[in-house]
Amino acid sequence: MRYSTLIGKTKKDAPKDENSLNAQLLIRGGFIHKEMAGVYAFLPLGLRVLNKIVGIIREEMVELGAQELFMTALQNPEPWQNTGRWDDEAVDIWFKTKFKNGTEAGLAPTHEEPLADLMSKQISSYKDLPTYAFQFQTKFRNELRSRSGLIRLREFLMKDLYSFTRTQEELDAFYEKASDAYVKIFDRIGIGEKTVLTFASGGSFSKYSHEFQTICPAGEDTIYYSPEKKIAINREVYTDEVIADLGLKKEELQEVSAIEVGNIFKQGTKFSIPNGLNYIDADGSKKPVIMGAYGIGPGRVMGTVVELLNDERGIVWPESIAPFKVQLILLNTENAEVKARAESLYKELNDKDIEVLFDERENATAGEKFSDADLIGCPYRIVISAKTGDKIEVKKRTEKESKLMTPSEFIANC
Amino acid sequence: MRYSTLIGKTKKDAPKDENSLNAQLLIRGGFIHKEMAGVYAFLPLGLRVLNKIVGIIREEMVELGAQELFMTALQNPEPWQNTGRWDDEAVDIWFKTKFKNGTEAGLAPTHEEPLADLMSKQISSYKDLPTYAFQFQTKFRNELRSRSGLIRLREFLMKDLYSFTRTQEELDAFYEKASDAYVKIFDRIGIGEKTVLTFASGGSFSKYSHEFQTICPAGEDTIYYSPEKKIAINREVYTDEVIADLGLKKEELQEVSAIEVGNIFKQGTKFSIPNGLNYIDADGSKKPVIMGAYGIGPGRVMGTVVELLNDERGIVWPESIAPFKVQLILLNTENAEVKARAESLYKELNDKDIEVLFDERENATAGEKFSDADLIGCPYRIVISAKTGDKIEVKKRTEKESKLMTPSEFIANC
Repeated sequence: MRYSTLIGKTKKDAPKDENSLNAQLLIRGGFIHKEMAGVYAFLPLGLRVLNKIVGIIREEMVELGAQELFMTALQNPEPWQNTGRWDDEAVDIWFKTKFKNGTEAGLAPTHEEPLADLMSKQISSYKDLPTYAFQFQTKFRNELRSRSGLIRLREFLMKDLYSFTRTQEELDAFYEKASDAYVKIFDRIGIGEKTVLTFASGGSFSKYSHEFQTICPAGEDTIYYSPEKKIAINREVYTDEVIADLGLKKEELQEVSAIEVGNIFKQGTKFSIPNGLNYIDADGSKKPVIMGAYGIGPGRVMGTVVELLNDERGIVWPESIAPFKVQLILLNTENAEVKARAESLYKELNDKDIEVLFDERENATAGEKFSDADLIGCPYRIVISAKTGDKIEVKKRTEKESKLMTPSEFIANC
Repeated sequence: MRYSTLIGKTKKDAPKDENSLNAQLLIRGGFIHKEMAGVYAFLPLGLRVLNKIVGIIREEMVELGAQELFMTALQNPEPWQNTGRWDDEAVDIWFKTKFKNGTEAGLAPTHEEPLADLMSKQISSYKDLPTYAFQFQTKFRNELRSRSGLIRLREFLMKDLYSFTRTQEELDAFYEKASDAYVKIFDRIGIGEKTVLTFASGGSFSKYSHEFQTICPAGEDTIYYSPEKKIAINREVYTDEVIADLGLKKEELQEVSAIEVGNIFKQGTKFSIPNGLNYIDADGSKKPVIMGAYGIGPGRVMGTVVELLNDERGIVWPESIAPFKVQLILLNTENAEVKARAESLYKELNDKDIEVLFDERENATAGEKFSDADLIGCPYRIVISAKTGDKIEVKKRTEKESKLMTPSEFIANC
């Protein structure tokens, strides 16, 4: 991609109405565009990052044996009335709208109810179980306040996985596998070290649910974290009883702010019984399907990465989700020979499928190009100028010093 | 994919409340699930088809030099008020909702206004032009009636491409290229022969807009088609004047029903002027950007393919968008040797990236397996049974006769 033609240019100043660091950096870098509070469009750079996060999550979902489907945003009230969650008192973040004929419809804040209803048409026998379905779908949540950039949105993409099992044991076993997959996902995205399994309220079906909380000063949540045991307790269940139950001691727990980047929940029969999601067991008896739900918001993950991985100059993307691996900077654009070398490397990198953003602007200074590259945060910066001769100047975004090398040395080692 | 574990099983009977052939076949085949009238979820088989259509369209958009972004469903009224299209009288298919603080928001029926607003923050100079942006985003349209399955939806994925140019000539040139890309897309999807460039009302900026109409009895539109010249006129502009203007004669035009699968439109400055989308030209003067819009609904295309390509037994998918290339049927599941051969071929096809749906059900008869394969409509059906020996029985969905061949013969020629 040539930077001169990219939709979404860098901006010198952060927008005044954005308090959060992630929105400031992402808007300044040309990744996102604010439509309204809590509602952001993704520009090409931002969509590339989002799609890479989605790609990593999808791979791990498929690895779990889950099947992808795609539900709807518009919601039929009925399955929600069946569980008592259509009521605005019960779920206080509904966006609702109306069909021409006056019928009410909701905008999905989550998909347990419609999926339980859908699966009741697909599952009949114990032979159909266990089964796992996931999707990437937009959720709508009418949050009272939304001022944390991509961390708390009114409209956001979510990966939601649901398990449908026969027994508690089957649910428990899959729950463990899903938990392991989440660990892998956050590792691959580059926030694994700061992300900790956190015990939270479990509802009526299980003692605890679990959150994946990324320790970060910008977090809206408070957790109590044991660095040694690598687990934490969410403030909402932080009691002497729970601390003892988990074999922890108050002294070893640190109070830290964190962002909830994922959660997993044993829902049991809460959604299946009211929506008639049953199966006929081997002995001929009719039983309700046992459900679990497992969520990650790719946009929130993207915002979290930016909150965690940045310096005073901009974003420092992990390679796995960077918009491009390389930002190639051409200086001395007036020098035909230098320009030809840069064009040739740009072509070579593209031919070798090394993703490259080529800053060939004629109307930008070297300083502007360097600071834009730092702000955008691709893992490698390459400079070609009248001074670099046959070589190229390579700098990692995480390092201060650049190195002169030949293009082929770079390609062999990047 | 093993059929026994697939979410979305075939159904013997078409749902009673579905009048359209596409919805009947797609629901019976396990491709989609009806949430409400005009609102369908995509099951794994259906999502595979949808994603293939999306993939083809995306390739052609990238080939045009367009950049992908991702706008929001929730709409800020302001850019729409600027063009006078917020009013329910002006646009009668709005879904509207409200934020907690009482502020109204809309659900995007299209994206001209927010994109003009967004681009006004990205475009400043003539050097930023021309530029082209596209997305795949859900549109919401509060249709009074919706009873054509995937053809007319209240919620649907849409690919919308927008061009931003300096001059009428630049717009005209891109418009031609986009039109050519559309021809390629419908060819690749397998409905090119039946899809015809149709002259429609152009609005105030150009004499005509163009639709891509697929000739099909189920179509809601009426067009007047010249088989010889391969163009048509939409009923809305079918006048003696237009016929003469296009160099056609009434006698050569046939009245046919058709489905609008795409449209391209020169919008001029209708959306840019009210939303301040201007650029500074080389001479220092400020000018409004000239826009064009180019839409295709992948779900509607999927419904159209089903309406066109089917027989009394089910769907006949073109290979480019089939959910799987091969449906592999194992008969005599009780025979360990036969089963091993089928498993081995299943593995080999997967290893060779030949997409295969493996019907290894133990509780289904041969007849059920054959009729399900016909209903689902993958291009190749392979049968392995006690009778096939070392060979496999291969039948194309479009042919009546099957052939015995070795697995390697099939793989080499499929």
